[in-house]
Amino acid sequence: MKYSSQLIEKAVESFSSLPGIGKKTALRLALHLLNKDPDWVQSFSDSFTRLRNELKECSECHNLGDDEICAICADKRRDNGLLCIVETIRDLMAIEETGHFQGVYHVVGGLISPIDGIGPDQLHIDDLARRIEEKGIREIVLAISPNIEGETTMFYIAKRLQHLPVRISTISRGISFGGELEYADEVTLGRSIMARIPYMQNEFSAAGQGS
Amino acid sequence: MKYSSQLIEKAVESFSSLPGIGKKTALRLALHLLNKDPDWVQSFSDSFTRLRNELKECSECHNLGDDEICAICADKRRDNGLLCIVETIRDLMAIEETGHFQGVYHVVGGLISPIDGIGPDQLHIDDLARRIEEKGIREIVLAISPNIEGETTMFYIAKRLQHLPVRISTISRGISFGGELEYADEVTLGRSIMARIPYMQNEFSAAGQGS
Repeated sequence: MKYSSQLIEKAVESFSSLPGIGKKTALRLALHLLNKDPDWVQSFSDSFTRLRNELKECSECHNLGDDEICAICADKRRDNGLLCIVETIRDLMAIEETGHFQGVYHVVGGLISPIDGIGPDQLHIDDLARRIEEKGIREIVLAISPNIEGETTMFYIAKRLQHLPVRISTISRGISFGGELEYADEVTLGRSIMARIPYMQNEFSAAGQGS
Repeated sequence: MKYSSQLIEKAVESFSSLPGIGKKTALRLALHLLNKDPDWVQSFSDSFTRLRNELKECSECHNLGDDEICAICADKRRDNGLLCIVETIRDLMAIEETGHFQGVYHVVGGLISPIDGIGPDQLHIDDLARRIEEKGIREIVLAISPNIEGETTMFYIAKRLQHLPVRISTISRGISFGGELEYADEVTLGRSIMARIPYMQNEFSAAGQGS
């Protein structure tokens, strides 16, 4: 598209460099900014430069935060003996969102994938082992996506930590709540039958029975 | 969603304030910026503040541009006697994109809509009349969307200009190229039959016959 203005062209270019935003949407967004107050646009723009320049990686868990130690690691009320291992900070946020986890996290930053040339050395696994030893962590929860790279990574971590006195658990797998059995994939359905659990143990189904 | 960082929260808020961008996409975009070079993010952000602060409305045609007079009005090669009237600069851009119009534009900035309280006074119609008189424009093309507000606006403009020695035309209406007759709406199809044109007059259908 030809623009009669360099300024519009540059703003459209910026927006359309973002994933999932095409030229037409970018133009719509750029024109949207023109209807806003100059101060608003200034603070809009500043939020991105500040994010990029001031955000810090937590030296403890590799989460991103405003300080050297992230808000979760710094929170005294959290259970420091329970450590949840996630691939990315997006997964960490998804778990935080549930409100069901009161421990701390460790972001490994990726999954082992020989095809993509990613080995254990590129991930934050070395300092995970160190952290478990030094901080006396009693249980780790592997909350990693159950695909091939995920299973490989979990297997590697479990092997790596087997000499340490730490309990290793994984988030439960099975049919989603509200999911249709008919549309579940074979592997999930098959494993969910093999790994069946007593009915009342399932807190969500028991909840309906007055517990 | 809870974020462990104020910086992330602010950036997500900025992105999700844009039309069509939800919280999840906003987070994805914010994290995308973290993978970019700080200089890149600086220039990304600057493009929005510069757009808002430096873009000017053309005093001639109300298009947006980098200078007092927009690039189109300033272009000596364009036909200043032929004036295309559009609702928004987005429509202007769409017409420019076709490369089939060599005249100049006038952006009225909206459509007459009594329900929304928009009357002719809120649009750039007064100075359109002045411009036609002063600049000796010989033809205007009404390129306005053919909905109720659009038809009202075109009717108003045509009435308003009827005392001036200017030819008023409108872009042709009909079935889109590549469109299926079966799926065209009744009004379009009906009018396109009533307003039928000689076969060879249609440059696109004639093009296939060796013209």
